[in-house]
Amino acid sequence: MATKQVAVVEQILSANDQLADQNRRILDEAGVFAVNIMSSPGAGKTSTIVATQERLKDRLRIGMVDGDIETTIDADRAAAAWMQAVQINTGGNCHLDAVMLSGALHSLRLDEIDLLVVENVGNLICPASFKLGTHISVLIASVPEGDDKPYKYPPMYRGVDALIINKIDLLPYIRFNMDYFIKGVEILNPGLTTFPISCTTGEGLDAWADWLYRQVMARKGA
Amino acid sequence: MATKQVAVVEQILSANDQLADQNRRILDEAGVFAVNIMSSPGAGKTSTIVATQERLKDRLRIGMVDGDIETTIDADRAAAAWMQAVQINTGGNCHLDAVMLSGALHSLRLDEIDLLVVENVGNLICPASFKLGTHISVLIASVPEGDDKPYKYPPMYRGVDALIINKIDLLPYIRFNMDYFIKGVEILNPGLTTFPISCTTGEGLDAWADWLYRQVMARKGA
Repeated sequence: MATKQVAVVEQILSANDQLADQNRRILDEAGVFAVNIMSSPGAGKTSTIVATQERLKDRLRIGMVDGDIETTIDADRAAAAWMQAVQINTGGNCHLDAVMLSGALHSLRLDEIDLLVVENVGNLICPASFKLGTHISVLIASVPEGDDKPYKYPPMYRGVDALIINKIDLLPYIRFNMDYFIKGVEILNPGLTTFPISCTTGEGLDAWADWLYRQVMARKGA
Repeated sequence: MATKQVAVVEQILSANDQLADQNRRILDEAGVFAVNIMSSPGAGKTSTIVATQERLKDRLRIGMVDGDIETTIDADRAAAAWMQAVQINTGGNCHLDAVMLSGALHSLRLDEIDLLVVENVGNLICPASFKLGTHISVLIASVPEGDDKPYKYPPMYRGVDALIINKIDLLPYIRFNMDYFIKGVEILNPGLTTFPISCTTGEGLDAWADWLYRQVMARKGA
């Protein structure tokens, strides 16, 4: 029974990876740079994405794919600001997968997009196992979650290309040892590019948005 | 393919429910009252459990089962304080299930325990689908997660017997509309027993611990 379950899981992951490769080809052919944004519930994915869009909208054409288990709150919030936004309801599933993103890509006019932001489901575990085909993955940690999160959710911290540390405006009110946190990150993902930010005060958001812009342009030039 | 996957998932959930019933019988025969504590990563499960133990240790013999995907940080933290603590490493799995709890029950001296506290994996989605056999489930929300969480993770809010709202000491520093939050909770789980607390200041913890104590005693009397 256990062996059968493992075999089924491996088949699903292998099929997912193949479709992720296909998503990447579709994105590359359309000249779209895609970023997969992951975090626990309430770490600030939507706030960060909206703030990023405000900083890049005059330089890039931006699209959004928003994953949620049931609602459309984030998509509603983004709809006013975004050129193109697609909602994926996962039907209770705890992560986006390449099949879901594939469906969303067909609903977008990709030739009118430079940067596609994919907001994953709020979860620090399963999204790390399912490639989507995006060019980079970014994790948003947040100060109130605590400084032990790299040690407790290592697969997520190992697999990302950049780390945002949100809600740094709350540092004076919370016991959060930044050295301990960063030490955990360094063990799992040495040299990881990290951006301390606050969506409330705006601190650090320009540095993050500029870095993302450079990633998009480097890919376009390649 | 999709139908086959759904069938597999249904078989797994049905087998889980049967084993959850068996766990409940084992707990009842031993006179142990068990509570399943769930939350997103960093909402304060371990802090709340340690604070609860401090308030109940002279009145109840308490045991703990701690679920984590890889580490033993929480169990290490609890080990000093608890009479009996068992660690479950889920091997990357995003929730505890009845099989895992069954194994843990066999490692505990249940006849020396009045209250068994089960700390689930930090995740607002999957733990809601897997019964463990505990007598009640409690969700810990936290203020920095945001006031929209009931609307975004409805299955979790629907399925619990009590709700703790942790980190209320941060309310002055965060935009969190308590009325909007409670309205969402009421839609999903009308009349849900709710405890606003702060593990930092200690506010609200006595009320929560007293309520939990009464649940344990009511079951013993039944």
